[in-house]
Amino acid sequence: MVVVMAPGATKAQIEEVVAVVEGAGLKAHLSFGDQRTVIGIIGDKTVMMDLPLAGMSGVEKLLKVTASYKLISREFAARDHVVWVDGVPVGGGSMAVMAGPCAVESREQLLEAAAIVKAQGAQFLRGGAFKPRTSPYSFQGLEQKGLEFLAEAGEKYGLKIVTEVMDEGNVSRIAETSHVLQIGARNMQNFALLRAVGRAGKPVLLKRGMCGTIDEWLNAAEYIAKEGNMDIIMCERGIRTFETYTRNTLDLSAVVAVKELSCLPVIVDPSHGTGLRKMVRPMSLAAVGAGADGLMIEVHPEPAKALSDGPQSLDEQGFASLMKEVNGLTTLLRGENRLQ
Amino acid sequence: MVVVMAPGATKAQIEEVVAVVEGAGLKAHLSFGDQRTVIGIIGDKTVMMDLPLAGMSGVEKLLKVTASYKLISREFAARDHVVWVDGVPVGGGSMAVMAGPCAVESREQLLEAAAIVKAQGAQFLRGGAFKPRTSPYSFQGLEQKGLEFLAEAGEKYGLKIVTEVMDEGNVSRIAETSHVLQIGARNMQNFALLRAVGRAGKPVLLKRGMCGTIDEWLNAAEYIAKEGNMDIIMCERGIRTFETYTRNTLDLSAVVAVKELSCLPVIVDPSHGTGLRKMVRPMSLAAVGAGADGLMIEVHPEPAKALSDGPQSLDEQGFASLMKEVNGLTTLLRGENRLQ
Amino acid sequence: MVVVMAPGATKAQIEEVVAVVEGAGLKAHLSFGDQRTVIGIIGDKTVMMDLPLAGMSGVEKLLKVTASYKLISREFAARDHVVWVDGVPVGGGSMAVMAGPCAVESREQLLEAAAIVKAQGAQFLRGGAFKPRTSPYSFQGLEQKGLEFLAEAGEKYGLKIVTEVMDEGNVSRIAETSHVLQIGARNMQNFALLRAVGRAGKPVLLKRGMCGTIDEWLNAAEYIAKEGNMDIIMCERGIRTFETYTRNTLDLSAVVAVKELSCLPVIVDPSHGTGLRKMVRPMSLAAVGAGADGLMIEVHPEPAKALSDGPQSLDEQGFASLMKEVNGLTTLLRGENRLQ
Amino acid sequence: MVVVMAPGATKAQIEEVVAVVEGAGLKAHLSFGDQRTVIGIIGDKTVMMDLPLAGMSGVEKLLKVTASYKLISREFAARDHVVWVDGVPVGGGSMAVMAGPCAVESREQLLEAAAIVKAQGAQFLRGGAFKPRTSPYSFQGLEQKGLEFLAEAGEKYGLKIVTEVMDEGNVSRIAETSHVLQIGARNMQNFALLRAVGRAGKPVLLKRGMCGTIDEWLNAAEYIAKEGNMDIIMCERGIRTFETYTRNTLDLSAVVAVKELSCLPVIVDPSHGTGLRKMVRPMSLAAVGAGADGLMIEVHPEPAKALSDGPQSLDEQGFASLMKEVNGLTTLLRGENRLQ
Repeated sequence: MVVVMAPGATKAQIEEVVAVVEGAGLKAHLSFGDQRTVIGIIGDKTVMMDLPLAGMSGVEKLLKVTASYKLISREFAARDHVVWVDGVPVGGGSMAVMAGPCAVESREQLLEAAAIVKAQGAQFLRGGAFKPRTSPYSFQGLEQKGLEFLAEAGEKYGLKIVTEVMDEGNVSRIAETSHVLQIGARNMQNFALLRAVGRAGKPVLLKRGMCGTIDEWLNAAEYIAKEGNMDIIMCERGIRTFETYTRNTLDLSAVVAVKELSCLPVIVDPSHGTGLRKMVRPMSLAAVGAGADGLMIEVHPEPAKALSDGPQSLDEQGFASLMKEVNGLTTLLRGENRLQ
Repeated sequence: MVVVMAPGATKAQIEEVVAVVEGAGLKAHLSFGDQRTVIGIIGDKTVMMDLPLAGMSGVEKLLKVTASYKLISREFAARDHVVWVDGVPVGGGSMAVMAGPCAVESREQLLEAAAIVKAQGAQFLRGGAFKPRTSPYSFQGLEQKGLEFLAEAGEKYGLKIVTEVMDEGNVSRIAETSHVLQIGARNMQNFALLRAVGRAGKPVLLKRGMCGTIDEWLNAAEYIAKEGNMDIIMCERGIRTFETYTRNTLDLSAVVAVKELSCLPVIVDPSHGTGLRKMVRPMSLAAVGAGADGLMIEVHPEPAKALSDGPQSLDEQGFASLMKEVNGLTTLLRGENRLQ
Repeated sequence: MVVVMAPGATKAQIEEVVAVVEGAGLKAHLSFGDQRTVIGIIGDKTVMMDLPLAGMSGVEKLLKVTASYKLISREFAARDHVVWVDGVPVGGGSMAVMAGPCAVESREQLLEAAAIVKAQGAQFLRGGAFKPRTSPYSFQGLEQKGLEFLAEAGEKYGLKIVTEVMDEGNVSRIAETSHVLQIGARNMQNFALLRAVGRAGKPVLLKRGMCGTIDEWLNAAEYIAKEGNMDIIMCERGIRTFETYTRNTLDLSAVVAVKELSCLPVIVDPSHGTGLRKMVRPMSLAAVGAGADGLMIEVHPEPAKALSDGPQSLDEQGFASLMKEVNGLTTLLRGENRLQ
Repeated sequence: MVVVMAPGATKAQIEEVVAVVEGAGLKAHLSFGDQRTVIGIIGDKTVMMDLPLAGMSGVEKLLKVTASYKLISREFAARDHVVWVDGVPVGGGSMAVMAGPCAVESREQLLEAAAIVKAQGAQFLRGGAFKPRTSPYSFQGLEQKGLEFLAEAGEKYGLKIVTEVMDEGNVSRIAETSHVLQIGARNMQNFALLRAVGRAGKPVLLKRGMCGTIDEWLNAAEYIAKEGNMDIIMCERGIRTFETYTRNTLDLSAVVAVKELSCLPVIVDPSHGTGLRKMVRPMSLAAVGAGADGLMIEVHPEPAKALSDGPQSLDEQGFASLMKEVNGLTTLLRGENRLQ
């Protein structure tokens, strides 16, 4: 961390900053410029972060030199961490595909979707039993019934289940059914929930918040890792920008950034990331090009009848041709010798 | 709601949309343009919202005509709703000031802060016992001890307590101490928590999410109202934009918008909204000018030693002169005959 | 400037950075951390900025300590610069009001508007003769005719004229008529135009770009100042964010920031900043509370017939009651002893 | 266009809107809801746009049904428009690569860069002779000398030249040298410049503004087309968002959108779009996956010595391996039978 003192900072103010830094067992390193004094701080970054420096007299600003997350960082974990989900790898060169309807609507709908998903070679079945909805009057999911249908479909087709958990109280119940616990974008910084899934003993899929910076997203992952769970799959799903043509702006550079800064695998959700069916194919191929470890795709047997997110769901044919292209691209870019 | 059909939409596709609309008990009204057919839908908006129209073939886009919240809307509640907190009004022409430290750090710190807050005429003591922090390694609050200190300080100085609740599990515990349950920006769309505070029988202070649109924020309030609790105080605290000079961009036009669209009172938090001490005074005056029903201000007996948010906290003198100006301005703009 | 070297940076890479810094006549100051070396650079900041450091091997990032503008900065010009427009001051405690229609539509419309503007005590008449419009098919202004009407109305009512200049070729022509040359938001970084108005010998009103950071906006002002013209009036008019309820998000904290960082006066345009007539009054009062040196307000004799921006224009009565409140507020906050 | 009347709108107000619509030769189509009346307008959209409806009494809001651009729209031009640049196609299945240094720094630097660019099979040499820089103290380009070096390098290596034009006054001078006139992001809505390049008789490369919506970007292209020049190459180069890890957020979904909404080819600039050398390769592959018609890549013989944008420039080796992968991907996705 670098402390930039204001132009008129006094000697006493500078000494006070140094005293606080050294009092915490860290080292301070001073640089005197023409107008400003700059103080470099050296030592344990988790100690550094809690020093009350920003509020001190004469301090103009703090410049962060290193990130505050640790366990998931490249400095700590140089090798890619492969998340094994009941025998299926995410990361390490494989291409994980998680597909299925936005919401579980009925037993029939889900079984049909699962059949399509399996037939095209995806390894995971996604589907929401508990749905976060902007309005309290929108369909909120089938809840317990939805979980049961997911369990049945997963078992019947040999697919791993991915479903969202929205509150601490439901973590253990959902962990019984789901192979992966999904944290939705709105809960990226629901710290109580992050801690709870960190202790649940299951892999976690952590969606990026709509206005989550890459740094905050990685810190959210650190909350999970700190509970002892390194099996975290990061999922880019679009950020909120001024552009309204797409529902969100899919930030594929975040895939590159997260893989550079951390050891965690990253997948991409082009369905939510764009909100437009016609964009799912090109943005899936783009995600593979950017180096994503997997895709999360909305597939519905009858998109026109979907209770949520119909406009961005693929039908059987659309999903089949997408999978063909994704496979071709993955083979070209990563070779045959990938994990799966 | 208005459905815009794509230029090439067929007669059959148009009829199918009409059938879905009428099948739900709503009316469809067609307009044929040169290139596009536009279908207006008339009837209950909460039914409308769940129709699977967006995914249907031939549909280009949906245009929302009305908002999806109801109970808090101006159409439903034309008169301003005054939230009475244990005898103290928020809204209705009064100026509610909630002041205190970002985090409760010790009994002494809080009692000192409370003394300052009371002396300058604020009615509410704010302070965090449970702190949401980006990094898991940052100070997370005194938790239970913090609540006890808040209770003691509130009682000693006759101040109403406002503190944040971060998870469902703590709602009832915090409701025992706190007169107002604060929902932080990161939890604006933590729907489980919104429902829980909606049932807790206490007024709720609902902060706007960092990327929450006004529409989403009002829908979040509707989640609380739908549980039977209309005592909701909206709090603008800055949104995330590209500008990095300020921590967030304080959106004072949101004060005007929320008061236009809903019956709820709105207060402003210039401390978090800007992150800069020197901006607290001018942005507080600006908030009063914009019509805010109150202010939330960080006050710390020794800002230079604050464990969190020191750079934006006022000390005793700063708070005293702010309160003097705020009072002058309120009297000028709203007259002496305001509620309090 | 601070150079942060990557964790694995070699001694040779560090030495190379130092060599480049010293080769440019600057001093380098090294700080060795556990993982990173940090190099502080001391000396002339305009030299510093052009060093090719960011691309050098081993360099992780550069952290800016000081801004790159100079002439307009507080470090250079501690006292507020008052811009005198043909005898009328902007800044220095006065409240400058620039009012009139978005576009000059006809001689009659402009004369009527000018009469209203004058009657309520504003000092400046605004009106567009050349209009920047998103679509090439929208009304583009009366051009030369518009300038003539402005000149006539200004003379008749003793109002100073403010009108936009959109291209270099028209600068001298418009400077003959207009007392203030306005640079619109879309041209904030049209550097050729900035240089041209810097040489035109007239005060300049520089609107903030829709996505202009405060730093970029001040650098744009520096382009004008560098040509020898310090008579620059900064104008906050809203930035582009994710919120769509308002046309833009009026960033009143920018008023405080610009007055802190530079010596220039700042005015606020709540009409364009919100795009909503009902917001003009509260946001004008908010701007005065935030410390703005003036307001730019759209006034139209018949807003319902305005060719552009009707929805945000005030009529005579609306403008009259606004001016009354603005005057009351200014007197309360700044006292009677202000310049004008 | 759809006019939504406010809940309390009177019959007279509705009739007045209808009168204005019909008075302009358009048709109005009314829909009466429970609370609101909605008026659909049918007819020539360029007439519609200039009606003063938004400011009329009783009008709540306008909803746009169709875009305001015409000549470049899919409704007007169903077939992809291939831009032929002196015999080299952009669009139509080809992969156009424009590479070279950010700024022309010297004759030697440019000739070296051109040799690399040519050797790897790119068709275009890019390089800035006039540079738009945030600060007036940064290097502004070699200007006339830079143009001469570009001409020499282009001729020597048989590369088409792409260089930026920043003001009207230089259009004809630059058009003598450059095969493509580039409009930079800051000038996307410099309408005078758009008109000037529209009349210059050369293909134009139109970069998206940092906060330009897709709709505004297409309208900017329409300004050029309206002058009779359809040879427009759109270039996505990143938008400004809250994320600061990358310089901008590259919005690859815009590639898909522009190709859907217009007939124009779209290329991607991952160098400026991310600002990070390590991201150029993955984001280039992502752009090809998304369907881009070309790439604009910064290549510098010695990135560590670049006067601008060194951190995002590729050296010879980096560019060579990128081109190999881009070629492989293009062949896989578009087949051998593409134009070039």
